[in-house]
Amino acid sequence: MNLQTLTTPIDGDAGANAPAPMVVNCVAYDKTGKRLPPITIEEISDVLALPDTFVWVGLHEPTEAMLDKLQEEFGLHDLAVEDAHNAHQRPKIESYGDSLFIVLHTAQEVNCKIEFGETHIFVGPRYLLTVRHGASLSYASPRARCEREPELLALGPSYALYAVVDFVVDNFQPIVRAFQSELTALESAIFENEYKRDTIERLYDLKKELVTLRLAISPMQDILNQLIRFHQGLIKEETRLYFRDVNDHAIRVKEASDTMSEMVTAAMSVNLAMVSVGQNEVVKKLAGWAALLAAPTLITSWYGMNFKHMPELGGKYSYGGLILVVVIACVGLYRVLKRAKWL
Amino acid sequence: MNLQTLTTPIDGDAGANAPAPMVVNCVAYDKTGKRLPPITIEEISDVLALPDTFVWVGLHEPTEAMLDKLQEEFGLHDLAVEDAHNAHQRPKIESYGDSLFIVLHTAQEVNCKIEFGETHIFVGPRYLLTVRHGASLSYASPRARCEREPELLALGPSYALYAVVDFVVDNFQPIVRAFQSELTALESAIFENEYKRDTIERLYDLKKELVTLRLAISPMQDILNQLIRFHQGLIKEETRLYFRDVNDHAIRVKEASDTMSEMVTAAMSVNLAMVSVGQNEVVKKLAGWAALLAAPTLITSWYGMNFKHMPELGGKYSYGGLILVVVIACVGLYRVLKRAKWL
Amino acid sequence: MNLQTLTTPIDGDAGANAPAPMVVNCVAYDKTGKRLPPITIEEISDVLALPDTFVWVGLHEPTEAMLDKLQEEFGLHDLAVEDAHNAHQRPKIESYGDSLFIVLHTAQEVNCKIEFGETHIFVGPRYLLTVRHGASLSYASPRARCEREPELLALGPSYALYAVVDFVVDNFQPIVRAFQSELTALESAIFENEYKRDTIERLYDLKKELVTLRLAISPMQDILNQLIRFHQGLIKEETRLYFRDVNDHAIRVKEASDTMSEMVTAAMSVNLAMVSVGQNEVVKKLAGWAALLAAPTLITSWYGMNFKHMPELGGKYSYGGLILVVVIACVGLYRVLKRAKWL
Amino acid sequence: MNLQTLTTPIDGDAGANAPAPMVVNCVAYDKTGKRLPPITIEEISDVLALPDTFVWVGLHEPTEAMLDKLQEEFGLHDLAVEDAHNAHQRPKIESYGDSLFIVLHTAQEVNCKIEFGETHIFVGPRYLLTVRHGASLSYASPRARCEREPELLALGPSYALYAVVDFVVDNFQPIVRAFQSELTALESAIFENEYKRDTIERLYDLKKELVTLRLAISPMQDILNQLIRFHQGLIKEETRLYFRDVNDHAIRVKEASDTMSEMVTAAMSVNLAMVSVGQNEVVKKLAGWAALLAAPTLITSWYGMNFKHMPELGGKYSYGGLILVVVIACVGLYRVLKRAKWL
Amino acid sequence: MNLQTLTTPIDGDAGANAPAPMVVNCVAYDKTGKRLPPITIEEISDVLALPDTFVWVGLHEPTEAMLDKLQEEFGLHDLAVEDAHNAHQRPKIESYGDSLFIVLHTAQEVNCKIEFGETHIFVGPRYLLTVRHGASLSYASPRARCEREPELLALGPSYALYAVVDFVVDNFQPIVRAFQSELTALESAIFENEYKRDTIERLYDLKKELVTLRLAISPMQDILNQLIRFHQGLIKEETRLYFRDVNDHAIRVKEASDTMSEMVTAAMSVNLAMVSVGQNEVVKKLAGWAALLAAPTLITSWYGMNFKHMPELGGKYSYGGLILVVVIACVGLYRVLKRAKWL
Repeated sequence: MNLQTLTTPIDGDAGANAPAPMVVNCVAYDKTGKRLPPITIEEISDVLALPDTFVWVGLHEPTEAMLDKLQEEFGLHDLAVEDAHNAHQRPKIESYGDSLFIVLHTAQEVNCKIEFGETHIFVGPRYLLTVRHGASLSYASPRARCEREPELLALGPSYALYAVVDFVVDNFQPIVRAFQSELTALESAIFENEYKRDTIERLYDLKKELVTLRLAISPMQDILNQLIRFHQGLIKEETRLYFRDVNDHAIRVKEASDTMSEMVTAAMSVNLAMVSVGQNEVVKKLAGWAALLAAPTLITSWYGMNFKHMPELGGKYSYGGLILVVVIACVGLYRVLKRAKWL
Repeated sequence: MNLQTLTTPIDGDAGANAPAPMVVNCVAYDKTGKRLPPITIEEISDVLALPDTFVWVGLHEPTEAMLDKLQEEFGLHDLAVEDAHNAHQRPKIESYGDSLFIVLHTAQEVNCKIEFGETHIFVGPRYLLTVRHGASLSYASPRARCEREPELLALGPSYALYAVVDFVVDNFQPIVRAFQSELTALESAIFENEYKRDTIERLYDLKKELVTLRLAISPMQDILNQLIRFHQGLIKEETRLYFRDVNDHAIRVKEASDTMSEMVTAAMSVNLAMVSVGQNEVVKKLAGWAALLAAPTLITSWYGMNFKHMPELGGKYSYGGLILVVVIACVGLYRVLKRAKWL
Repeated sequence: MNLQTLTTPIDGDAGANAPAPMVVNCVAYDKTGKRLPPITIEEISDVLALPDTFVWVGLHEPTEAMLDKLQEEFGLHDLAVEDAHNAHQRPKIESYGDSLFIVLHTAQEVNCKIEFGETHIFVGPRYLLTVRHGASLSYASPRARCEREPELLALGPSYALYAVVDFVVDNFQPIVRAFQSELTALESAIFENEYKRDTIERLYDLKKELVTLRLAISPMQDILNQLIRFHQGLIKEETRLYFRDVNDHAIRVKEASDTMSEMVTAAMSVNLAMVSVGQNEVVKKLAGWAALLAAPTLITSWYGMNFKHMPELGGKYSYGGLILVVVIACVGLYRVLKRAKWL
Repeated sequence: MNLQTLTTPIDGDAGANAPAPMVVNCVAYDKTGKRLPPITIEEISDVLALPDTFVWVGLHEPTEAMLDKLQEEFGLHDLAVEDAHNAHQRPKIESYGDSLFIVLHTAQEVNCKIEFGETHIFVGPRYLLTVRHGASLSYASPRARCEREPELLALGPSYALYAVVDFVVDNFQPIVRAFQSELTALESAIFENEYKRDTIERLYDLKKELVTLRLAISPMQDILNQLIRFHQGLIKEETRLYFRDVNDHAIRVKEASDTMSEMVTAAMSVNLAMVSVGQNEVVKKLAGWAALLAAPTLITSWYGMNFKHMPELGGKYSYGGLILVVVIACVGLYRVLKRAKWL
Repeated sequence: MNLQTLTTPIDGDAGANAPAPMVVNCVAYDKTGKRLPPITIEEISDVLALPDTFVWVGLHEPTEAMLDKLQEEFGLHDLAVEDAHNAHQRPKIESYGDSLFIVLHTAQEVNCKIEFGETHIFVGPRYLLTVRHGASLSYASPRARCEREPELLALGPSYALYAVVDFVVDNFQPIVRAFQSELTALESAIFENEYKRDTIERLYDLKKELVTLRLAISPMQDILNQLIRFHQGLIKEETRLYFRDVNDHAIRVKEASDTMSEMVTAAMSVNLAMVSVGQNEVVKKLAGWAALLAAPTLITSWYGMNFKHMPELGGKYSYGGLILVVVIACVGLYRVLKRAKWL
């Protein structure tokens, strides 16, 4: 499923038609969390040679060559780099020696459709490298927030990592809200009188999107629990409480999506019941009107018979009487059927 | 889901239209559990400087400024205060150094509708701070109960905490009972002959409210289990048995809501079956009456034919005989169909 | 659910209309398991002062005053006594210092309906106190069985406890059998040709009773596992094997009720399918007979037309020929429809 | 459920009408695994007095007296013997001091119906006692296999136990295959055009039998895991790999039955859909033919009117023209409806 | 289920009609990972006598004699060899002393149908033996990949094992993609207007294939987790990261199949709803047209009556007026019904 929803990695920088640059940002920070002048990729290893600095690099759909260069600069593991180049990974956290490789799924509403993207993160004791694929907002905004609080950024890559993960999880919130309003709209549609095929199709699509959302958000708990509890040395103790906070948000997104999933299933079954009730009413009406018409039809047939001796046919007021009888029969039947709710 | 049901936090003090004061109560208790004269927020730190007292503050939708003042007085953690200001948290328990931050969901019936609120609780070795948001009864009543039993209140904040949590859980009981009578009413509606669309809609709404209730009550087990087993120093051993008692009530609410949820699902499926059976009966009746009318219709059509030589048409008693035949045919058919339950 | 089924605690001593006495039995046993002369409630503490005896008291819906007196005699915990007075507890086992408080749900068929009751049990090193509420058989019979085997009763309160718990679990067996025959009866009803609304309602009721049964029997496993493994000192090692045996019976009751629950769900869905198949057959029959009657109706309509020049009308044998044609058409159609199973 | 399927324990020796003897076999083996001359029940304790032998006794529905005798010879525990006499146990493994009591459910196809039986096994350091109840093949065949491999039988009772358990599990395989062909047959029936009530009933029965099968096979994993890991002294290390092999077979039977259970549920729902589609087609056909007949019926009615001045009626070729019009209308309608798939 | 899908083990070498040779490959590698000249089965033990080499043998459906020979050369355990000869094992990993026996299920698309096969793998400290049964591609391709990277192959049998397992898991990917496009095709079919029985049948078949796929892929996690964590000595530390990578792929296949399974269930229920909606529309149309035709039919019947005194019949323009009335009635009714969406 998520394999397919990730098929347009090319112009994933949503909202912008111009191609995003491959290296979005490459900045070093000193031990007080202050931003140093921008550096090039090639200068990274020189900067890392200085004590008490860390480097935060943001890439967007890099070429293989670019990744190879960074692998060299940071000393990344082959398998992790291979994964980072391939955009179809599941959310996971993997430890390679003293560094972590984290894959997150991101979600974004693009032109009224939910699109999913991926972010691959390499964290080392002194660097953070983010690689975005597909629909995912730039991390300029969490970076700006971090730079406004240098005393926290001084905690090093683990705080920067928190800022990025927090941003990814928070971006699921508008998606959840969009799904909630879609569900509310579908509920109204179900309990209206019109049974549109469209409602069923939209319920099915919502179910499908919720399943994809769950695949993106479920593994977050495992990833965050590891960041809350393990990987000492890499994750500073001071930042653990922040990851616990993100975990809380992730659980809320998951609970909301599980709840919606359950309600969509209920809505599907309720919709089926409403369709059946609707059919019941149609059949009842059909039966009611057929009954109402049966009386005059039988009477007119009766007097269409060609018997020689039918005393009623000859009388002067016969025809008028017949009209009266038919009208009375119809009105009476109408009332009876109306009371029995068959009309 | 719970995100939406919490959207009216402004006048949450249900039943009272006048705005509730922000600081509902601010009282200190001495080591015998006796209430000391009321103090202001600013005096809290002075009181805490005295040995063997504890402070119990009750807030209702405080402003940010008020929370900041309290944060200073009690020395609360930034992340917890941030959560306390934001009314959309999931039920949880978090430990910050030697204090606990607890979020509970509360429920209340307001004008025949269930409304959910939140209470955030800060517990320290010598203080208890409750912050109410949205629909939730004031904690004046558990406070009064505590003050009537000073020997128990002398156990300190953990007994006051018990009183509040117990009150929150007990307030779920009338909600459960309201749901149970709604379910019973719906069951009667299902097994009556009328298939109202309304029944389906109410079943769906009940399902939805049960799901929200479950989100509010499920995390209570985890919270209470922590209070029963961990956080030594903060939670006095003597109060653990009380929390076990509350846990028992919480489990009963959860079991009742799970059971109802299961029965609502069964009721939905049973309702669908009843609708189908009802339709079966309508179709059978339709078919039965059509069959009953078919006989006279065919006969009258038959003698409406214009053949020159139809010996039956000429006879003197032909018409009378025909009437007899039609009556007999109808009565016979009626009996046959009645016996076969098609009428 | 179980809250409601317990609403008639007054004359719970099923089968007997005369009010049962509050103190059903109050007997002491010596170290050989031999029954001593009956004692009054007030003498209990004197008897317990003697070495090597134990007291077994049976109460039936005691007043608060009575419970208070026993609390004093045995030194029971406040919270447990409060629970024991209140008849709506879930099955549980709680340890208070060196005594246990156990709540069991009991079930009994009263006038063809399953009624649920509660038994609260206090076990101390030298006493057993049972408190019955609602529908539950008297424990005279397990007591008698114990007294016939004094060498086992000499094991003390834990053997007496086994006798009571075993009796409670065994009393679920006839309930399970009653449910099984109800299910078998419903299965026959489903696969018969008649689709009664009644069947659906009974399936729903069975489902509901199975859910209540599960609530009563599920916590037994936890209770019995504790009695099999923990609470040393209170539970003699020699009786552990007996509790394992009871646990086995409890698991069998639970498995039987889970299995039935699953089959009831399947039966509901199968019933819906049978209703649909039945409707299919009705509609097919309706269509078949309509087709059979269409032929003569069209023919008779045809010769009811008033054209001046209709050569068929004048012929001498026209009418006879027509009769022949109609008969042949009807017989032919009948055969075709019969073969296609539309009649 | 399994309580009922076990109600005919009397002539359980399936396939044989002659009553099976109570003691099927009573043989001692020496330390090389060689069979010694047959012995009587009374001689068992004498044989056990010799070093390095073990005794393998096979019983079939023994009387209480017989069991009592064996209890004495082998020193079996009261509770286990009580269970062994009572044929309605769930599969379990229980340890009594240095002996094991194992209950297995067995299954067998008798006259095209699956019947379930029980085997109770007592294993001691130097004996194996099997007690068969209900439908279950004699253990002559695993015994013969063992005796052909005396070097393995020299491992003692634990190898003999393996042979019996392996035989029981292997006998589930033909049952699974029978269920699989029944499911395949039902699948064909569902996707054929005929909607037989019978199919639904058979699906329900298969579901029921699968549930019973699961009850029999699920506890096997727990039993076998204990034999693979625990009970040192009784279970020789050399036989553990053999039990792992049996466990593998048991898991396969369980997986197959779980899978079938899932497919039966899917088949039920698919069947319901097929019935609905079928009904759709019937209603469409009904509507189509009604529409086709509506045209000539209306026309013939029209010219049955008795207006004095209806110019069409008088013309010489009017009747011929009418026939033409009717034929053309019918053929045209037929084509239109055929193309719209309503006929 | 999987028992049946494995019934054609004979010409399992898919795509090739010519019988594959039994010994596909038998090669030794030296300590640098370099391929040595091919050897015969008989020479294996001689080669293993040399230090620092390892042997990799690939078999395809070997005869019992061949397996016996290899058992002798490598010293394999009886039970494992017995399993390897029998093609119906579930995926598992079993340790026999210092060697491992692994069973994997393989899948392959043969002539537009998914076929499942099995691979049995024996791994020792210095050998790897693969035995293919049924539909499964030859392992020539992973072997070739290994030989291109001798520095990795120098890690010994555990790297060769990784290559084989990775190849097996990767071959599930096209299967998953085939299922995904089938599901997408079915979704379109459901939301089109045509309700084909065929759609239901294909949904059922897809469900069945997904269940089989799950049986094949689920045990992979357990197998891979063991290879990632345990079996030290056999599995080199350097290769563990590679197995973690394979595990990741296996989880993705499993997640994709679970997701599809969930969506197939939803699709089945949605399909049923669509069929019901479709039936609703048919019944409505039927009722609408019946109502439209009822008016002229009643009117023409009316004037077919034979009353002597019906003033309307005699008038000169009566017939013309009647035509007008009928046309107006029909057009009016048509509009009313059209607006109410009954036509």
